[in-house]
Amino acid sequence: MPRGAVHEALAGLELVDHHCHGVVVDPLDRPGFEALLTEGDRWPGMSTFDTPVGVAVRRHCAPLLDLERHAPADVYLARRAELGPREVNRRFLTAARTGVFCVDTGFAQHRVTTVAELAAGGGAAVGHEIVRLEAVAEAVAARGVDADGYADAFRAAALDAVRRPGVVAVKSVAAYRTGFELDPARPAEAEVTRAARRWLARGGRLDEPVLVRHLLWTAVDLGLPLQLHTGFGDHDIRLHRVDPTHLTDWLHLTAGTIPVLFLHCWPYQRQAGFLAAVFEQVYLDVGLTLHHVGPVRARAVLEEALEITPFRKLLYSSDAYGLAEFYGLGALAFRRGLGELLQDRVDADELSLPDALRLARWAAADNARRVYRLPDGH
Amino acid sequence: MPRGAVHEALAGLELVDHHCHGVVVDPLDRPGFEALLTEGDRWPGMSTFDTPVGVAVRRHCAPLLDLERHAPADVYLARRAELGPREVNRRFLTAARTGVFCVDTGFAQHRVTTVAELAAGGGAAVGHEIVRLEAVAEAVAARGVDADGYADAFRAAALDAVRRPGVVAVKSVAAYRTGFELDPARPAEAEVTRAARRWLARGGRLDEPVLVRHLLWTAVDLGLPLQLHTGFGDHDIRLHRVDPTHLTDWLHLTAGTIPVLFLHCWPYQRQAGFLAAVFEQVYLDVGLTLHHVGPVRARAVLEEALEITPFRKLLYSSDAYGLAEFYGLGALAFRRGLGELLQDRVDADELSLPDALRLARWAAADNARRVYRLPDGH
Amino acid sequence: MPRGAVHEALAGLELVDHHCHGVVVDPLDRPGFEALLTEGDRWPGMSTFDTPVGVAVRRHCAPLLDLERHAPADVYLARRAELGPREVNRRFLTAARTGVFCVDTGFAQHRVTTVAELAAGGGAAVGHEIVRLEAVAEAVAARGVDADGYADAFRAAALDAVRRPGVVAVKSVAAYRTGFELDPARPAEAEVTRAARRWLARGGRLDEPVLVRHLLWTAVDLGLPLQLHTGFGDHDIRLHRVDPTHLTDWLHLTAGTIPVLFLHCWPYQRQAGFLAAVFEQVYLDVGLTLHHVGPVRARAVLEEALEITPFRKLLYSSDAYGLAEFYGLGALAFRRGLGELLQDRVDADELSLPDALRLARWAAADNARRVYRLPDGH
Repeated sequence: MPRGAVHEALAGLELVDHHCHGVVVDPLDRPGFEALLTEGDRWPGMSTFDTPVGVAVRRHCAPLLDLERHAPADVYLARRAELGPREVNRRFLTAARTGVFCVDTGFAQHRVTTVAELAAGGGAAVGHEIVRLEAVAEAVAARGVDADGYADAFRAAALDAVRRPGVVAVKSVAAYRTGFELDPARPAEAEVTRAARRWLARGGRLDEPVLVRHLLWTAVDLGLPLQLHTGFGDHDIRLHRVDPTHLTDWLHLTAGTIPVLFLHCWPYQRQAGFLAAVFEQVYLDVGLTLHHVGPVRARAVLEEALEITPFRKLLYSSDAYGLAEFYGLGALAFRRGLGELLQDRVDADELSLPDALRLARWAAADNARRVYRLPDGH
Repeated sequence: MPRGAVHEALAGLELVDHHCHGVVVDPLDRPGFEALLTEGDRWPGMSTFDTPVGVAVRRHCAPLLDLERHAPADVYLARRAELGPREVNRRFLTAARTGVFCVDTGFAQHRVTTVAELAAGGGAAVGHEIVRLEAVAEAVAARGVDADGYADAFRAAALDAVRRPGVVAVKSVAAYRTGFELDPARPAEAEVTRAARRWLARGGRLDEPVLVRHLLWTAVDLGLPLQLHTGFGDHDIRLHRVDPTHLTDWLHLTAGTIPVLFLHCWPYQRQAGFLAAVFEQVYLDVGLTLHHVGPVRARAVLEEALEITPFRKLLYSSDAYGLAEFYGLGALAFRRGLGELLQDRVDADELSLPDALRLARWAAADNARRVYRLPDGH
Repeated sequence: MPRGAVHEALAGLELVDHHCHGVVVDPLDRPGFEALLTEGDRWPGMSTFDTPVGVAVRRHCAPLLDLERHAPADVYLARRAELGPREVNRRFLTAARTGVFCVDTGFAQHRVTTVAELAAGGGAAVGHEIVRLEAVAEAVAARGVDADGYADAFRAAALDAVRRPGVVAVKSVAAYRTGFELDPARPAEAEVTRAARRWLARGGRLDEPVLVRHLLWTAVDLGLPLQLHTGFGDHDIRLHRVDPTHLTDWLHLTAGTIPVLFLHCWPYQRQAGFLAAVFEQVYLDVGLTLHHVGPVRARAVLEEALEITPFRKLLYSSDAYGLAEFYGLGALAFRRGLGELLQDRVDADELSLPDALRLARWAAADNARRVYRLPDGH
């Protein structure tokens, strides 16, 4: 572990992971593991271990499975299979030293842990839930609704969903469905009905622009913080359409209502930081990015994310999905990256140590507690 | 101070600050100071001191007020009040060691220093004036003009303004009003008249796209260098619309006429550098950015700004407004950041010392003198 | 030379330069040399030596001409003239230690080396050819064709061109002609004919959007890897239109067909890396960028290019044109930048040495051999 008071403090802090997913509970073979290791796919002649995140797994996760650093992929996977999913998940979740998990339960292509199982896996952690609004809308459509009834049915279903115990926020993947070059205004009722007619006739994912706008405005009405996927993800993303500054007009219209949390952000972390600096309601994290770039680049990304961002506005998330390794790596990369950034500033006398410790606590946990109004210690 | 011949040379150089504003002459209470410290606003539960620029003020400005480094905000503001605005402004302006101030007088939400007062505050400095063209147009409208007479009246008023003694350039905030995705062509007379009719009927800020184009072309006719706000600012900016490369077609059409100086640029400093590398008339600075990111990131931003930029094309500005601290911080961040960049290259034998000293002089002062045709020593 | 096992390995590796051009065979006077040194032009009162690449030439190329490091431009050019183009070219090409050159023969504003001469100049190197498709289309038009016959004639000419011995890939400069905001679909035959009618009537460069799309789809039909200019170049580029993520829809439509290699990429290296991470067929390099930013910034650009990029997806190119210096500088910046990146990770135990050596071999040569199916050692 790197040395210094900031590093030590960060090592001792329990994180609030304000956006994550379940981990796979079944054994994974090599194809299954390699598929989860990438935002791309498995391609002939290329192992997904030959990526920055693959190198980081072999370096930082292997020792947690009692292996040498940089263990070969085959050795790693054999040992992982030997230990079994329950033990593997326990080790990485424990290593993450996370006190609170806020879990997006709306995406699962595998059998994954529930919120309670995830929290239990990490020791005495607390689990909260994030409601993915597109999943709510699609469930409404799947249950059967006509266009005239769509808006009411979606609103009612969303209200039901957020009233479940433990729900602290909603999330939208508008980034994947339309991107952010949307008309910012709240759509009129008749417009929503016409769009619902088109969508319900066509079926499939909610990708009708008017309904995506309607969904974002419904989030405003729900009154909970809204998490927005921003920046990189899988190949469904049109990266140039998910620069969060495209939402500026919408942020003006919704100022004074709900907190908006930009997730991931890379490579638009500076743009997200700008929005966090000039809009009261905007927050950001660099989750997902942290484990994909790995500890070797986490600091560089965080440096950009924090260039002008108020220190009350940066949160931690792993955005881990599927592989418990990502919980461990995300937490490590965050602690290491933020620690190096702050420690070097303290060492250069650019920041006082008490300030550095305060900023570390804020980013690691307190900012999330504040935004989601989590009880202290939860 | 960092050590090395380049750092020493930069410490000894008087800067030409080619774009700045007045500083507030009245006492500032905490809300007033905090509001000026951010491009955002003051928000409940968050101090604007808890930002990169706030940390930099407590670190680098406190000692100039005879306080410990990292003095608490309250202590800082109490001492600031005790000394009074005149003495505070004197200390920071002197610390900036700036020989020439080119002052944009078109923006002032507070009682601020005049050009002469600002120059006097910095010792024996010289003050020049930058005419903000939107302010000229809006004054023309305020005085009363009809649509048919708008073009002539604006041109006459702009000519009058630039003929005042001490005016060395004009400036446009087209970035704030329309962004840069404009038709690049000079608008026809009839088009201008129709647009003026729309604008004069509606009133308010000059944000009519045809009139903004007309303003940019009027700048070409005036023949003076044109400063263009680029990249970040307050929440009126739609950041994705102020990437300066959107002006490429306009730069082609106006090649061979006036110098164009991109201000601030962040996070588009690489894009601005590209334009400076391929268009003779393009120059850039990273003013405003320097104090907001602070000395800890000034070098990183300058490294990107200089990746391919010809060394004749980088200028210094503080873009300080309101707080005299920004003069001190901007100058410090520039000297420190550029010094580290050049000194490390000299130390690694990637750049000769004489070259480094020449490049430092150019960026600190000579490039601005050349563009604005300032007399030597002024 | 920097020390360490990775640096030593990279020093010993013969590069595959997968995209380059000929070097000028005639003597160059100062204006001629300075014009080739920049993507801009020569401007009064500014020497193109006063740029990052100019500083790098004086630092790193002067010793290869038996001069002191940082030799003045005049001394450099006098010595260059004294040695003569043949000897100068030989020295820099040899210094590049390049085993394979893949030469774009479609651009030459000067008398430049043929593929064979270039390969011979670098010792016992092998030369392959890249066919620039816009040049093929423009030659078809120049020979005379009517609109109805354009599609067939272009296809036949392209097939003829790629069947020449030594051709390993095709290239498009769509970036210069239209940018990447193109309808991604294959254009219908009638649409192509109408567009050809417009273009042939008008003449000039192939900049008709439908025909550019048709050209990209013809590349798919040809079945060879397609190189695409991306990011910065001369002032004909509209930089915001050549972010490669604008091609996402086209990459979806052409998945499973040909490899697509994004060249240069700067400042969009992160965006290109994203595409390489999520599309099997996408590869990238930071050629051209490397010598323009020089060895002092090569590592920073490579760090960003490799943040999430699979290690099978990064290739080396110089994109040298005209000046043999660019061969030497590009190779040096690549070896130095990649060496520092990998060596530091090895030194910090973030990467094993065997992995680092493998990744170095892949990027330096093996990835290109694999994509272009080059015989081993060629």
